[in-house]
Amino acid sequence: MALKVALLGCGVVGSEVVRQLARQADDLAARVGAPLELAGVAVRRPGRVRLPEVDPALFTTDAAALAVRDDVDIVVEVIGGIEPARTLLLDAVKAGKSVVTANKALLAEDGATLFAAAQATGADIYYEASVAGAIPLLRPLRESLAGDRVERVLGIVNGTTNYILDRMDAHGSGFSEALEQAQALGYAEADPTADIEGFDAAAKAAILAGLAFHTRVTAADVHREGITEVSAADIASAKAMGCVVKLLAICQRSPDGSSVGVRVHPAMLPREHPLAGVREAYNAVFVEAASAGRLMFYGAGAGGAPTASAVLGDLVAVARNRLAGARGPEETTYAGLPVHPMGDSVTRYHVALDVADRPGVLATVAESFARNDVSIKNVRQEGHGDDAQLVIVTHMAADAALAATVDDLRRLSTVRSVASVMRVEALADG
Amino acid sequence: MALKVALLGCGVVGSEVVRQLARQADDLAARVGAPLELAGVAVRRPGRVRLPEVDPALFTTDAAALAVRDDVDIVVEVIGGIEPARTLLLDAVKAGKSVVTANKALLAEDGATLFAAAQATGADIYYEASVAGAIPLLRPLRESLAGDRVERVLGIVNGTTNYILDRMDAHGSGFSEALEQAQALGYAEADPTADIEGFDAAAKAAILAGLAFHTRVTAADVHREGITEVSAADIASAKAMGCVVKLLAICQRSPDGSSVGVRVHPAMLPREHPLAGVREAYNAVFVEAASAGRLMFYGAGAGGAPTASAVLGDLVAVARNRLAGARGPEETTYAGLPVHPMGDSVTRYHVALDVADRPGVLATVAESFARNDVSIKNVRQEGHGDDAQLVIVTHMAADAALAATVDDLRRLSTVRSVASVMRVEALADG
Repeated sequence: MALKVALLGCGVVGSEVVRQLARQADDLAARVGAPLELAGVAVRRPGRVRLPEVDPALFTTDAAALAVRDDVDIVVEVIGGIEPARTLLLDAVKAGKSVVTANKALLAEDGATLFAAAQATGADIYYEASVAGAIPLLRPLRESLAGDRVERVLGIVNGTTNYILDRMDAHGSGFSEALEQAQALGYAEADPTADIEGFDAAAKAAILAGLAFHTRVTAADVHREGITEVSAADIASAKAMGCVVKLLAICQRSPDGSSVGVRVHPAMLPREHPLAGVREAYNAVFVEAASAGRLMFYGAGAGGAPTASAVLGDLVAVARNRLAGARGPEETTYAGLPVHPMGDSVTRYHVALDVADRPGVLATVAESFARNDVSIKNVRQEGHGDDAQLVIVTHMAADAALAATVDDLRRLSTVRSVASVMRVEALADG
Repeated sequence: MALKVALLGCGVVGSEVVRQLARQADDLAARVGAPLELAGVAVRRPGRVRLPEVDPALFTTDAAALAVRDDVDIVVEVIGGIEPARTLLLDAVKAGKSVVTANKALLAEDGATLFAAAQATGADIYYEASVAGAIPLLRPLRESLAGDRVERVLGIVNGTTNYILDRMDAHGSGFSEALEQAQALGYAEADPTADIEGFDAAAKAAILAGLAFHTRVTAADVHREGITEVSAADIASAKAMGCVVKLLAICQRSPDGSSVGVRVHPAMLPREHPLAGVREAYNAVFVEAASAGRLMFYGAGAGGAPTASAVLGDLVAVARNRLAGARGPEETTYAGLPVHPMGDSVTRYHVALDVADRPGVLATVAESFARNDVSIKNVRQEGHGDDAQLVIVTHMAADAALAATVDDLRRLSTVRSVASVMRVEALADG
């Protein structure tokens, strides 16, 4: 007896799901224990979609009806965005359908509503495709590490920004030039805001933090800075320190474990860090756990086929569960840890200052750090005379203290300008 | 109502499992939905084990009785080896206990018997800890990629040999010296045979291949070569080509997909390959799938705490299943692909020949390759006169044809000696 699948949305990912369902029908049936059969495909304009694998009679514009149709067992949503996806999935879950979704925005904004509804009806909600495309993260975090304590998750979860920063690093180009190149190659959209301002990464950070810390985290809880301010000079400074600049999604427990911080911002990473070698549009997530130690998951973070691979893996899982009358692991939010503000996050700063090259400058600058309780890891002076620049890397401190230090520095008469400020992650503190 | 756990074996991993069960009791209970309670710990000499976390009354020398005791729900086996582990687990499964094991040797030799028994009673057998310690591989391969077609798995799955080869690469040391260093630091055992001869990696390769190809593969099916013959000169040759030498576990479909090859041997890998950057005793597994593309999983492959993390993740999973009256995904061997002999595996050779430096040598050598249908990708001559060496890298060819070519070369009068032969993996064929 076949399991019936309703597909909501048929863009790049949806079309690939349809193709793979047809191409791998026998394998999928063997793995599930029953054939998977397409019950319908909801699209906005049926005439536009050309897929020889689909009986044209299966196309419908009535997604709402399809999502709750009696003969449908599983609903796959690849429309994206908050509405109508939320209403469609909520109705599907209430009608007892198992759900597979790639919708990071919806889960990061209002996953709670969906999970509560699923809890009530015993429906499965699987969403591996919502974070880092084909890279298995959901199962590793929510199942493999279920017996461990995750301390920190550090991820490159947006391919567009990684491509841009990698290009800036490899070619010395500026941000705008690298963005144009990314757009020309299809790595960035015509309106790149969601990527370059960090919105996409912030949604994924919320989902990762929720899984890692058994706590509900929404996109609004995530401190977010994009990469538009990253300059060729910043990249050069990073290089001089043996670092690369990456847009990181960072989910971290506070030192005493009583709260968590979730943030997205560009940061310097030492070149020997496993994440530093993640080139082009690839994604990777680095996990530090109390017992497991350091783990990294690497792969294609976007694209039709990789995302479809994640969707189909979930489809097989929920189909197996359905046949067995079972459910996958539920969302666990038992820890309920508060999300602390960015100012309480503990990190390091790299600060480059254009200064007057005269005695006493370093003392004045050092005094600003000391006043804010920020300890300096190292200082070096580059150039001299009018070109003198002080480059300072701090030890770990609260972000608020670091930011206050920079404000202080801006007010010093001996500091001509603060040329660059960037956080530095993943260096062992010495 | 607590779930009762019987622990068989209490060495490095077992002790850590006990410690974590105590330390994380509340978290584990919240994640499972019920407390996990130690029902007994089977050891050979109870007096020897000092664990303040365990009520001394829980120790027993009667593993057989503990494994089937009525009040036990879950049996965790960390004894290792074939017997008595096989009999203990078989009896446990027949008695309907859920099983978590780290026993790669047993699964690679006789997993079939265990899985068949589990099928009959509906028991779970989870074994994440058996391959690459804390790195989640079981779930990614058997669940996340269940909707994809895995083409190839390339793994560094033995930390001891990776440490030795990394040391040879970084310090130019010979094999024996690097082995001694590894032993001094505790990365290699006093009798290092299982690691350096590739037995450990071969067992893991069998398990990975079974998961990747939905086919039963045993350790006996795996072509195995260790690293004892790898010389400082081989490492230097690899360096000259921009490569590193790694002991790889390779699971690969034949070009027409009708069979699979599973092999463990040292091989050259280009430095830009993600696996090439895996240093020291770390492990990593690189997966190529039709839709997902390239994925890599990286982390600690051994050690008490990392292995315990994998065991505890499985423990949470089987406990959840038990509470839900459900089962995890079964072993799938529906594809039943034959394992082809090593001679049919398609690979590339790097061959270094000490030759007489005179006209016609290259022609004679090239003729040997041509006669065996092996096409040459590039040749370079190093040195001249008595020191002349020809370094040849082939295109992809069947291993048997490559081996026959080397036999031919050894018989040529113009070839003084075949200085080095090593396979080259993961280069795009040009």
